[in-house]
Amino acid sequence: MFKRILIANRGEIAVRIIRACQELDIETVAVYSEADAKALHVRLADHAICVGPADAMESYLNKAALLAAARESGADAIHPGYGFLSEDADFAEQVTKAGITWIGPMPETIRLVGDKDIARASIAPSGIPMAKGSDPLTSNEEAMKAAEEVGYPVILKPVAGGGGKGMCVARNEEDLRNILNLLVDITKTKYYFEHYIERSRHIEVQIVADNYGEVLHLGERECSLQRRNQKLLEESPSIALTQDMRERVGQLAVKAAKSVHYSNIGTVEFLLDLSNNEFYFMEINPRIQVEHGITEAVTGIDLVRTQIRIAAGEALEFTQKDVSFTGHAIECRINAEDPDNNFLPSPGDITFLHEPSGPRVRFDSGVTAGLAIEPYYDSMIAKIIAHGRTRGDAIKIMERALKEFRIDGVKTTVSLHKKILKDTYFRTGNIDTQFIKNRMDVYEALPKDTSDMNEEELANTISEGMYFA
Amino acid sequence: MFKRILIANRGEIAVRIIRACQELDIETVAVYSEADAKALHVRLADHAICVGPADAMESYLNKAALLAAARESGADAIHPGYGFLSEDADFAEQVTKAGITWIGPMPETIRLVGDKDIARASIAPSGIPMAKGSDPLTSNEEAMKAAEEVGYPVILKPVAGGGGKGMCVARNEEDLRNILNLLVDITKTKYYFEHYIERSRHIEVQIVADNYGEVLHLGERECSLQRRNQKLLEESPSIALTQDMRERVGQLAVKAAKSVHYSNIGTVEFLLDLSNNEFYFMEINPRIQVEHGITEAVTGIDLVRTQIRIAAGEALEFTQKDVSFTGHAIECRINAEDPDNNFLPSPGDITFLHEPSGPRVRFDSGVTAGLAIEPYYDSMIAKIIAHGRTRGDAIKIMERALKEFRIDGVKTTVSLHKKILKDTYFRTGNIDTQFIKNRMDVYEALPKDTSDMNEEELANTISEGMYFA
Repeated sequence: MFKRILIANRGEIAVRIIRACQELDIETVAVYSEADAKALHVRLADHAICVGPADAMESYLNKAALLAAARESGADAIHPGYGFLSEDADFAEQVTKAGITWIGPMPETIRLVGDKDIARASIAPSGIPMAKGSDPLTSNEEAMKAAEEVGYPVILKPVAGGGGKGMCVARNEEDLRNILNLLVDITKTKYYFEHYIERSRHIEVQIVADNYGEVLHLGERECSLQRRNQKLLEESPSIALTQDMRERVGQLAVKAAKSVHYSNIGTVEFLLDLSNNEFYFMEINPRIQVEHGITEAVTGIDLVRTQIRIAAGEALEFTQKDVSFTGHAIECRINAEDPDNNFLPSPGDITFLHEPSGPRVRFDSGVTAGLAIEPYYDSMIAKIIAHGRTRGDAIKIMERALKEFRIDGVKTTVSLHKKILKDTYFRTGNIDTQFIKNRMDVYEALPKDTSDMNEEELANTISEGMYFA
Repeated sequence: MFKRILIANRGEIAVRIIRACQELDIETVAVYSEADAKALHVRLADHAICVGPADAMESYLNKAALLAAARESGADAIHPGYGFLSEDADFAEQVTKAGITWIGPMPETIRLVGDKDIARASIAPSGIPMAKGSDPLTSNEEAMKAAEEVGYPVILKPVAGGGGKGMCVARNEEDLRNILNLLVDITKTKYYFEHYIERSRHIEVQIVADNYGEVLHLGERECSLQRRNQKLLEESPSIALTQDMRERVGQLAVKAAKSVHYSNIGTVEFLLDLSNNEFYFMEINPRIQVEHGITEAVTGIDLVRTQIRIAAGEALEFTQKDVSFTGHAIECRINAEDPDNNFLPSPGDITFLHEPSGPRVRFDSGVTAGLAIEPYYDSMIAKIIAHGRTRGDAIKIMERALKEFRIDGVKTTVSLHKKILKDTYFRTGNIDTQFIKNRMDVYEALPKDTSDMNEEELANTISEGMYFA
C-alpha cells in the first residue's frame, strides 16, 4: 500500500480523499494555491505544499509544480480528484514516468475516452447502442450533408471535453445554417454530430475495475436534473428503471468498460430515450465523480478507498453478486451562487456555518466558518447526501437537512433545492434532462420566502401548470 | 399519526427528536429555559416555548410548566428524550391523563422498572439470571447479615435511580462496617445488596416492543468503558460475544421485557461475568438511550421514529428475522470537560466549531458556534458515531473524525478518546467496566500533546504495563 499520497486538487474532493487516506493509514500531501492557504484540505492533510498563485492555471493546473511537489514530498502516488488534471492523459503519463502511481485509469485509457470520436469507434463494435453520429466535421458543406445523414434533430458536440460545454441542437436545416454562421470556423474546434434525443434522462453507471480484468458495476445514478449542463441533484437508484432495465444498463456499462480495457473506477454515461426506453451511450468519465457518494450510500462500498486499493495493485475483493443495494440516496450540490441573480457565483467570507448532520445525512465540504469562498474556482462548496429507506424517505431527510443547514456570508443554491424537492413532478419522478430549464420560470415566480407556507400550499404552487401530462 | 409533538428536553437529544419528527412530517414544539433561548433545538423546532429559568428544577423538570406548554401549543404527544423526566412515572401519568400521548412505556411499566427491588422480583420468575441480591435494608444489623447471605464481595445499591449513582462495593465485613458508618442513615435512601461481580463487561440489549405484544431485540451494545459510572464510548456489536452468546442475551432481554409487559423501546442492561461468561440482569431503562445511534447504524432501523410510530399505535412492520446487522459502530461521547483538571465541567462560549463529517460519520449535537455551553446542564454536548465494515475500520474512521473535529472555547474529552482508541488493550478488546479507572494513570502520564508522535510510538507508550495479561 502507498505510504504517502499527494492530492492534486482542492475543496471538498481533496477533503474526501484525505479522509479515505486517513482511514487507510496513508499519509497525505495537500497542494494549495496562495488563495487556499487556510483551506480545510490544507488543515486536514499531514503535509501541505503551495504550488502557485490563486489562478488555477498557475497552481492546480500547473503540472511542473505538482510533479515537483510530489517528488519533494516523497509521495508514491497522486490522486487527481475530479476536474483540474484528472482527465489529462499527458499529466497522467508524466506522473507515471516519474515513477509515481497515478490513481486512475491508464493514460492511454484516459486519452481514448477523452476523444468522443475515438471512444465511440472503440466501443461501437461491442454492440453498445449509441445515437447515430457523424465523423468529425471539416467544413460547413460537409456538416449540412452529415446532418441530413444523421437525421434531424441533431446535436453538435465538440469531440474533446465534456460537461455539455459547446453543445447545441439543430432541429432543421435552417437552424443548422444559423448555428454554422455563428461558428467562426467549424474546424477550429473539432465538432461532430449526434442524432438528438428529444426527451431523455441522464442515467450513468458506476464502474469498478481492477488491474486484472475484473469489471463490475455498482448500479446507476440518475442525473437528469441539470442547469446549463451542470448537474444539480442526483439520485440512486433511478426511479425510471425497471429491474430489467437496471440489469441491462449495468451490463452495457461493463461491456463498454471492458471494450476499452478499463481499469480503476469510472462512470459510463447513457441517455435513456423516453420515447422507446432505450439506453444510448454518451461517454466514459475516467475519474471519481462528484456524485459518487450516493452510490457509496446504497452499496456500502467506499469508492475512494477502492480507487486507491486498485491503484496499489489489489484485486477486487468482491464480485458482482456481492454487490447489493439498500434504500435510496439523493445528493444536492450546494453552490455558492445567487439564485436571485441568475445563479452568478457568490464569493464572500463565511461568517457562520452550521452543517446538517444526524442520522442518514452525509455532508461533504471543503469549507469552514472563517474561510472565504474565492472567485477563482468552481462554485460548488458542499454536497449533502440523504440516504433513506425509500425515495420518499430520502426526500424527507434531505428536506430536513436543507432546513437545518445555515451558511452566512455567501448565497447558495439551497433555496432552489428546496423548491425542486417540493415539486410534484419531481416527487412523482416525472423528470428529464430539460426539467430544470422548463421549471425554472415556475420556481422563479414562487414567492421568495416560502417559509410561511405549509407544505400543501407550497406543493400546489409548484405544481401549477402541467409538465408532462 | 401525531400532528404536533412537544419535546420535553434540550441539547442533542431534542435535536435528534426534531429530526425524526421532520422526517415523519410531524410539527415540533421545543421547550427551553431562559439560558437556552438561542439553543439549536429552539432554532430547529417549528414552535418554541420558554418553560422557566436556567435551573432545570424550574424549567426542564417543571412538570406543571411542561404540561401547560403542551396544552397551550396543542401538542398531541410528548417525547421526553432521556434524563430529566423521561423515567418519571408520575409525569408520564399526568401527561396521559391530560389526554396527551406519552412517547414511551406505560407509566406503570416505568414505575415498575424504576424500582430495582420490584423489577428484580417481577423478572426473576421468568428465569432471567441475576446476581444474588437482598431485600431492601432497614438497619445496619440487618445489612451485615444480608451481606453474609448474599456473599462478599457485595455491592450496595439504592433501590431507585440508575447511572451507578450511590453505589459502593464492600469486599468483607470490615469494608461494609466502614461504609455503613459513613452512611448517616441507611433507611433514608432505600438500599439493597447484590453480589458483586469482580470482572465484568456492561452489555445491554436494545428492545423494541409494540402495543400488541410483539417484542424484538436489535442486538447488543457494549458499554464497558465508563468513567465514574458514566459511559464514555460504546460499540455494537460487542467483541466479547460469540454468536451463541449474542442470541442468548438477546433472548434473555426479550424475555425480561415480556415479563413486565413492556411496550415502546427500551434497554435491558446485563453484566457479563468474565469468570464464567454468564449474563446477569441489571435493569431495564424505559427510554431512548444516549448510545442508541450505534444500534441504528448497524441495524438501519431508526429508533426515534420507531418510538413515535409505536406510541401512535402502529404495529411493528418487521419481525425478529428481518433484523440484520451490518458492520461495526462506535460512539464517542464528547463532554465539555477539562481532561487536565479531573474532568471538571468546562462551560464557555463556543467561538469556532468544525464538525466531523463525510462518509460513515454521524455527528449528533445540540450546539453551534456562537452558543455558550451553560454550567446548568449535563456536560455532554455531542456524540460522534463511526460505522465501519469491521471494528478495526470503525476505529480508523473514528480516529479521523476526532482528528478533524475542532471546537474552540471549551475543553472536551476528545483527547481522552484519542488515547483510548490507540490503547492496545482497547484495540484487542481486552476491556471491562474498570478499564477506564485502571488505565487513567497511564493516560495521564502520556505527554499532553501527542500529535508529534507517530502511531507506533503512541501505541507503544499506551500499552506500557500489562492490563490483563
